Amino acid sequence: MSRGILSGMRIIEGSAFIAAPLGGMTLAQMGADVIRFDNIGGGLDAKRAPLSKNGNSIYWAGWNKGKRSIMIDLNSEPGREIVSQLITAPGKDNGLFLTNLPMRGWLEYETLRSRRDDIIAISIEGSSDGRSAVDYTVNAATGFPYINGPSSSQSPLNNPLPVWDMLAGNAAATGLLAAERYRSQTNKGQLIRLALTDIAFNAVANSGISAEIQINGNERTNNGNDIYGAYGHDFATADDRRIMVVAISRRMWEKLLEATGLNTTFIELSENKNIDLTNEQVRFDWRKEITKILEPWFLERKLKEISEQLSEHGVCWETFQTFSQLITEDSRFSEDNEMFENIYQPGIGSYLASGSPLNFSTHERLPVQPAPMLGQHTNEILAEVLGLPDHSIAKLHDDGIVSETSYTE
Amino acid sequence: MSRGILSGMRIIEGSAFIAAPLGGMTLAQMGADVIRFDNIGGGLDAKRAPLSKNGNSIYWAGWNKGKRSIMIDLNSEPGREIVSQLITAPGKDNGLFLTNLPMRGWLEYETLRSRRDDIIAISIEGSSDGRSAVDYTVNAATGFPYINGPSSSQSPLNNPLPVWDMLAGNAAATGLLAAERYRSQTNKGQLIRLALTDIAFNAVANSGISAEIQINGNERTNNGNDIYGAYGHDFATADDRRIMVVAISRRMWEKLLEATGLNTTFIELSENKNIDLTNEQVRFDWRKEITKILEPWFLERKLKEISEQLSEHGVCWETFQTFSQLITEDSRFSEDNEMFENIYQPGIGSYLASGSPLNFSTHERLPVQPAPMLGQHTNEILAEVLGLPDHSIAKLHDDGIVSETSYTE
Repeated sequence: MSRGILSGMRIIEGSAFIAAPLGGMTLAQMGADVIRFDNIGGGLDAKRAPLSKNGNSIYWAGWNKGKRSIMIDLNSEPGREIVSQLITAPGKDNGLFLTNLPMRGWLEYETLRSRRDDIIAISIEGSSDGRSAVDYTVNAATGFPYINGPSSSQSPLNNPLPVWDMLAGNAAATGLLAAERYRSQTNKGQLIRLALTDIAFNAVANSGISAEIQINGNERTNNGNDIYGAYGHDFATADDRRIMVVAISRRMWEKLLEATGLNTTFIELSENKNIDLTNEQVRFDWRKEITKILEPWFLERKLKEISEQLSEHGVCWETFQTFSQLITEDSRFSEDNEMFENIYQPGIGSYLASGSPLNFSTHERLPVQPAPMLGQHTNEILAEVLGLPDHSIAKLHDDGIVSETSYTE
Repeated sequence: MSRGILSGMRIIEGSAFIAAPLGGMTLAQMGADVIRFDNIGGGLDAKRAPLSKNGNSIYWAGWNKGKRSIMIDLNSEPGREIVSQLITAPGKDNGLFLTNLPMRGWLEYETLRSRRDDIIAISIEGSSDGRSAVDYTVNAATGFPYINGPSSSQSPLNNPLPVWDMLAGNAAATGLLAAERYRSQTNKGQLIRLALTDIAFNAVANSGISAEIQINGNERTNNGNDIYGAYGHDFATADDRRIMVVAISRRMWEKLLEATGLNTTFIELSENKNIDLTNEQVRFDWRKEITKILEPWFLERKLKEISEQLSEHGVCWETFQTFSQLITEDSRFSEDNEMFENIYQPGIGSYLASGSPLNFSTHERLPVQPAPMLGQHTNEILAEVLGLPDHSIAKLHDDGIVSETSYTE
């Protein structure tokens, strides 16, 4: 059996929605044993859309692949005791807790720490001021919705992709590994905190968007599909497809001119206007004129011909695809790509699922595992991690403190 | 002096644009010594927009904070030898290489490995099929541009935020820490590979978007600012602001009804239509009717009043802000938030910059460091990492192999 690069590391996850589950899945798909605990019947995200026809959550299955699941009555004292024991189990592979649940009361850091001094807990929170926040509200505050759209647009437009959740999940994985490294050197645990608004505002600042306002007094506006500060544009083809073409380096620009054979036309433009189009800022400033020259070349040709010409010259370009086109026409989104595997997800069916995007040369790719059914591993976790004997586990079931899988096939 | 959680770890970075620089900066802002090497005069990204009035790159400064910089003639044999020596320097803190340069020729993994057997190199690549790709072309292929926009929209619309670059940078940091952990246990190094298209297609699959098509035959379409599968909508206020309101859990929904006092109206709707609005899928299906009822409540009130009412009841909501509003009106984007610090960036000026979004309880926050000037640390790196004496360093300068800072203040 293949073991991943993080094998031997166990993370207890108490989570819902995307950020924390993705953090756990990122580590699980690298070989960590990630145990997600849920209330009996499932957490807030157990029935989120999209659902299969029989009501199981395709969404939940997507963010929880490769984990183990235990179902526990989290409102009961004995149930909470079990979770606390799982989180603070002894041994160097244990004592890692990833959550976006409020770390209050029985889940308070100091309470957990009193049971295991070197516990590492990472808490993903909403707004840095303590307010409730989710990806879609955080995004509203960032400023990005006001530049998402065609240049004529006035209304703010949110991103259909939960970017901040996804970045937070990745940051949580990084933070946990950093803290575990530190613990292995010093035997010190800790609490790591991470707010969704900080993830988002950090991105605004890093992008230079706020600095540009503070330094130059210039606020970025909608550029549609143009790339800010360089040349990038979308073009229609003769057969009614659209493609994205990018020239952010001098070499990419030269390749584009070679591929389209429009070199002399652009030399004329440069000479007439006395501009240097090998400078990317100049290309940005003159993007409308550039587009006007390039447009007919694409409109006169079908995608197939364009594809051959651009690829032959190594131009940086891509076809706009719908999701359906992506999964039916693009071999990079198929089992031809070793990141993908067709899996059978109990209660849902068979579909293409993704493993880790990271390829480690020391390790074979782990098979892509489906998400667990809720409570699928309740008994084995109680036995393996807490060392409970069969009769104690049976009693917990009898008392309604833990539960096993029940799902609709 | 405060030392970060990754202090003692050194990464050599050969990079351009966003993904790899962000990977390095993520680790640098956690205390790693990240040394970025650039060709004399700077790499492809040295002059990317936005620029300050005197032509220095605000963009470059944003993605390279807290690193050290060495400038080397990368086209010369002696220059390449120096970089190879930096990458393969002995000692457990060394031997980490992060790059998006092509790992060919003198930078080939096997070549580096012949100099240090346990080298860890992480290579961020464009398309998984070897084609050139950047964030904006990758995004075109994902399918997201076809659902980014109002429901009336037909044209694909790219994301103004380079999401895939940012996720790749985060994944690179995670991958590097995982590999270093493995090396510390086994003394084995490795090559880690990561393609931008894999990062993006992984997100499509994890989101359940492709599975939904394969299982239900249902392709997601544009929902504007509505949240797929739950209730979330944007509303105009009496004073012409817009806000985002979200109810993705039963509790969030109940709080929204309490705050707006519209509980009885929704009970009537539920009874008339025989629907259960505490179910989030039902809220999604009836989102237009829900919005119609809520809309006047917001339109009749100014932002201040709305803010007080919603916040008092703990509703999950947020104001849409432009970038300017974010940096002038939102205290979470200011030095009130300890993630932020006003820094002086040589050649550019003073502005608010962000440190790591991760807060480690074992470590005080590292001060936010500006980006280095190109070549700022050339001499100290040659002395410290390679142990070169002054006269050797002087000779390298004389021969034009290395160079120190030259910039416009």
